[in-house]
Amino acid sequence: MAGTDRTQQPADGGLAMILVKPQLGENIGAAARAMYNFGLTDMRLVQPRDGWPNPHAVGMASGAMPVLDGARVYQHAEDAAAEIQHLFATTGRHRGMVKHVVTPRRAAEMMREAAARGERCGVLFGGERSGLDNDDVALADNIICVPVNPAFASINLAQAVLLVAYEWFVAGDDTPPEEVALGATRSANREELVRLFEHLESELDAHNFFRPPERRPGMVRSLRNMILRSRLTGQDVRTLRGIIGALASRR
Amino acid sequence: MAGTDRTQQPADGGLAMILVKPQLGENIGAAARAMYNFGLTDMRLVQPRDGWPNPHAVGMASGAMPVLDGARVYQHAEDAAAEIQHLFATTGRHRGMVKHVVTPRRAAEMMREAAARGERCGVLFGGERSGLDNDDVALADNIICVPVNPAFASINLAQAVLLVAYEWFVAGDDTPPEEVALGATRSANREELVRLFEHLESELDAHNFFRPPERRPGMVRSLRNMILRSRLTGQDVRTLRGIIGALASRR
Repeated sequence: MAGTDRTQQPADGGLAMILVKPQLGENIGAAARAMYNFGLTDMRLVQPRDGWPNPHAVGMASGAMPVLDGARVYQHAEDAAAEIQHLFATTGRHRGMVKHVVTPRRAAEMMREAAARGERCGVLFGGERSGLDNDDVALADNIICVPVNPAFASINLAQAVLLVAYEWFVAGDDTPPEEVALGATRSANREELVRLFEHLESELDAHNFFRPPERRPGMVRSLRNMILRSRLTGQDVRTLRGIIGALASRR
Repeated sequence: MAGTDRTQQPADGGLAMILVKPQLGENIGAAARAMYNFGLTDMRLVQPRDGWPNPHAVGMASGAMPVLDGARVYQHAEDAAAEIQHLFATTGRHRGMVKHVVTPRRAAEMMREAAARGERCGVLFGGERSGLDNDDVALADNIICVPVNPAFASINLAQAVLLVAYEWFVAGDDTPPEEVALGATRSANREELVRLFEHLESELDAHNFFRPPERRPGMVRSLRNMILRSRLTGQDVRTLRGIIGALASRR
């Protein structure tokens, strides 16, 4: 089926996160949680320092057990990446190698393009102390370099996994950048708004608010603009008219 | 001066990260590290459960002391956000409130636009157990909702801080999405490449590689394309010519 429908994507997103010589179980657990937050499950561990499974990972994973339970352990990065077609290495510096360097955002686009062709991707992450060694970096097609404060550039292992997983998820996500959550309600229509304006303005006239009278037209426009900026719902209009009525009534 | 140069941005980016009732010092420390990775220093803590300062924060901060040392403690979110002009609240769900919901990426654009006008922004993050309470959310102009795996949507506090800080940094960063790090070397020119091609092809002719002869033109084109795809440097060309010479010599 994969041969006939080349846009079909594997359930694991076609993306493996490969942690090379990670030290702290807590970081492996936090990385698992970050992966699962963004729908990734294929975690591979190369020579985890404290063995595997590691109970410290479980607490920090906060329930991302599909990732931890499925994690596979390898002796070498080459073995962990054996069937990977597009391999990325995360580093904080260029290491003097002649290699393509991409941002996490660009890497995510490349991964999505590869997955759409049915090809598998992987990302190498180095251990906490010194990152990937140069031989592991040389195994990868591309380097992912996170843009970062040059004065404080060392990113926590799980945080690096999170950023790559987040960018991968967002590259395939169609959440609108900006929307108003209306819940069970709906936006006010022009008739409701105009009745609100007229209610407010008539009460303000009755209370002699617009002084001097020649300023009334400009003040009315400012009030109407202020009210419109808050993008009222039908319920908001009813609430505001109740407030106007309450304030305008005798105590 | 800020009045005359409205594009001047404050040293702290004009962005405060406000942690409301955080529980674990480790998460405060990890949040501080994430902030400083992306050049942010203004951390505010509302009722940190275990008091402040907290030694558990220091270890996880990995040296982000400008953030921890400058952190200020408040009793209420209103006080922590007192001078903030554009306040965001991070939540995992919409809470049934009628409110603008934005992605972290869109929020970062809005923050950069506000900072360019010399206005201050802040982001509220809730504690580990249950996030922000509804009254704190109601204090904010906008909700930031991270697009996430709906089956595993709970993001660690420090990870949420990281994502907002990362998007803020990237929104003001001009790193090219893709580039080749050449280090001290330079790309090969066409003359070097053609000499390499001819060197290889003449040795292959001498070793009777192109068979049958009518396939030679197509095979040569494929070889040349394969070599060009690796985007050789001048040094690479010299290395490859050495390899060809070595392989073609008698043992």
